[in-house]
Amino acid sequence: MEFEALSSAELAAYLRSVPCVYALLNEPGELDIAEVGDGNLNFVYFASNAKTPEKSVVVKQAPPFLRLVGKTWPLTRHRMEREVAALRRFGALCPQHVPRVYHADNELFLMVMQRLSSHRILRQGLMDGIVYPKLAEHLSTYLAHTLFFGSDLYLAPEVKKQAVSAAINSELCKITEDLVFTYPFEDHPSNAYSAAFPRAEIERLWKSPALRVAVAEMKWAFMNDAESLLHGDLHTGSIMVNQDETYVIDPEFAFYGPMAFDVGAVLANLLLAYFSRDWHDRHASADGKPYRDWLLAQATDIWNGFSHKFLALWREHESRRKSHFIGGDRGGACVEAFRARFMQRLFAEALGFAGCKMIRRIVGMAKVADVTSIADEKLRASVEVRALRCAERLLVDRQTLRSIDDVVALAREVQARYPAQG
Amino acid sequence: MEFEALSSAELAAYLRSVPCVYALLNEPGELDIAEVGDGNLNFVYFASNAKTPEKSVVVKQAPPFLRLVGKTWPLTRHRMEREVAALRRFGALCPQHVPRVYHADNELFLMVMQRLSSHRILRQGLMDGIVYPKLAEHLSTYLAHTLFFGSDLYLAPEVKKQAVSAAINSELCKITEDLVFTYPFEDHPSNAYSAAFPRAEIERLWKSPALRVAVAEMKWAFMNDAESLLHGDLHTGSIMVNQDETYVIDPEFAFYGPMAFDVGAVLANLLLAYFSRDWHDRHASADGKPYRDWLLAQATDIWNGFSHKFLALWREHESRRKSHFIGGDRGGACVEAFRARFMQRLFAEALGFAGCKMIRRIVGMAKVADVTSIADEKLRASVEVRALRCAERLLVDRQTLRSIDDVVALAREVQARYPAQG
Repeated sequence: MEFEALSSAELAAYLRSVPCVYALLNEPGELDIAEVGDGNLNFVYFASNAKTPEKSVVVKQAPPFLRLVGKTWPLTRHRMEREVAALRRFGALCPQHVPRVYHADNELFLMVMQRLSSHRILRQGLMDGIVYPKLAEHLSTYLAHTLFFGSDLYLAPEVKKQAVSAAINSELCKITEDLVFTYPFEDHPSNAYSAAFPRAEIERLWKSPALRVAVAEMKWAFMNDAESLLHGDLHTGSIMVNQDETYVIDPEFAFYGPMAFDVGAVLANLLLAYFSRDWHDRHASADGKPYRDWLLAQATDIWNGFSHKFLALWREHESRRKSHFIGGDRGGACVEAFRARFMQRLFAEALGFAGCKMIRRIVGMAKVADVTSIADEKLRASVEVRALRCAERLLVDRQTLRSIDDVVALAREVQARYPAQG
Repeated sequence: MEFEALSSAELAAYLRSVPCVYALLNEPGELDIAEVGDGNLNFVYFASNAKTPEKSVVVKQAPPFLRLVGKTWPLTRHRMEREVAALRRFGALCPQHVPRVYHADNELFLMVMQRLSSHRILRQGLMDGIVYPKLAEHLSTYLAHTLFFGSDLYLAPEVKKQAVSAAINSELCKITEDLVFTYPFEDHPSNAYSAAFPRAEIERLWKSPALRVAVAEMKWAFMNDAESLLHGDLHTGSIMVNQDETYVIDPEFAFYGPMAFDVGAVLANLLLAYFSRDWHDRHASADGKPYRDWLLAQATDIWNGFSHKFLALWREHESRRKSHFIGGDRGGACVEAFRARFMQRLFAEALGFAGCKMIRRIVGMAKVADVTSIADEKLRASVEVRALRCAERLLVDRQTLRSIDDVVALAREVQARYPAQG
């Protein structure tokens, strides 16, 4: 039977029939239903008690296709089970940063979850030049907790191996394998190039052995390195914020992959926000400089905070358990040497993944509003060139960029070298 | 119910009751049964038709414990299913180098397989100084085929991810995680040090941050990098040879792991054979020098042959499929650049794993006969020091040892620097 999106009446009747949801909505007589999905994959609704609109939930349903493209791109609906499982797992690890799942229906591929009514999508906030004072603190906590507790540094080996198996998410991983790591690097029909973007910049990308090797290494790591349960799509459109709180939503791409992939996604999207300020500053009232500095400071604080908290969790866990991943360390110097090396490797991989994520947003099918909302074609092209050039350096030089300060310096250098045109 | 090994009469009755085995054994009236297991894990029997002894099979049964230790080290019997699945998979990929499975019983955790009656265990042959002219050709083919066809370079992503899940082998992986990557690097009660081995050499190992970091990185790769279906225990005791044929047996440790682990195991055991020649040459009639050279030439030829064949399979597959793992390559330089980088990484990891495998054989619980058969305690200690020193260099310098020739030079250097005592 062909999939039909639920009508408002059908959805309202359904929600009233689920006791826990009915209670949460304050036993509504009438429900206001609004379809609000702006994502690439699913249908999303707000359902509110018509009399007491503050009683409200989010309903998310997976259609049997990629919503961004339509029925010509079929997708099994089981991705909803992956998302529910990931929300519950991340919610257990980090309840203050993950929306609660109230109800999941494995037949309708639908879930009912916490409505974040006083929060907005981070990407929109960044475009508007809003400062979120707790963002770095919250995101670094989220990253450290979700990535540490899913890994072999914490879980018993057999528990972790079962978790790897349970989290297999081939279909959505394939989307990333294609759209992030492959199609942008060839003249693929799904790519989309902006009007004024210089073709030579794309050709350059495709033909650089150093870059292509680096991207292929990141693709190999993405497909093979089952280090921890990842969000899998942690861009600034998957984060909801206000001045006090930060929530990470939409983990339908969750699977066991390389930890640095989530970290790199955050860094990539902060850099895209930074490079696009020339446009968005025009619409902000204040001087743009402090906001640009704030954006780069977020990259710094998120990496440093993540690294600090991840190491603290690791030390605390091994101290409590009285054993180390590496085995005994009577000299006392080896455990910390491994931790330092481990974080350095994670950092290098995060830069590599960040580079891939930036390039796919410029060259590939799925764009980011930070860039697509730039109405001036020439200016947009300048921003796109910066993003590509920075991404290339992140990928090719990921082993020699030794600290987040090096990355910030690189971003400033690229920004200065390719001034805004238009 | 407590496990009891099958009596000869019970086993004979069982084998006669399985039609395909009964036929293979030429419908035996009486069967000669001999228990021949010298492995660490299982019971192994030869079962032959008493009248036509050339009609013979091998029977292997997994008891619910680690045979090397006994009932105090329990182990689930499902490892037999892993071994059967791996033999069938490797047999499909490489029939000329993998014994045939005739019958598998998932209730008795028992299988009946091809008897290799004119072959012997490679380790014994090497100790006796026998040249096997086709060994490198055969092993490099086995490694290239099993590792390439299990990987993302060949399999569709969803097929590979399902294969990863199906091959989870937590219990036997845990043995490797502990006995290869952890216990030898701490003063663990399961370790065993030979009488004359200098304690300072072990202390040195435990306290070297560079070495401990390298070993921990290899452990992390072993636990996380699900690259291909591995044999998982590919030492020279898992290989049976004669002048014409080479078979790889005993893949009960099979799981999806880093490709270089199998390659490293072969290199490690050739190096252990090389370093122990001072003893075994005494019992060989001929001059020892040519045989030492032959052993090192095997390492060279196996790596070079593996690398050559793996690349040939990769090129052929992508040429037939008209697409590359990395995506399109209009310039033509990028695909080969990635392949070169890929093989260089595999090589470095193989050296790291080889180092771990050598150290565990000297310091850890499970030894190799090449070394334990040395009756002269001082000479044995010299051999053990060489093995540890070489292993340390393989691990710490794995990125700078750029070719197998560098490794051969290293082995000769270590051999010369630590002359035989005793």
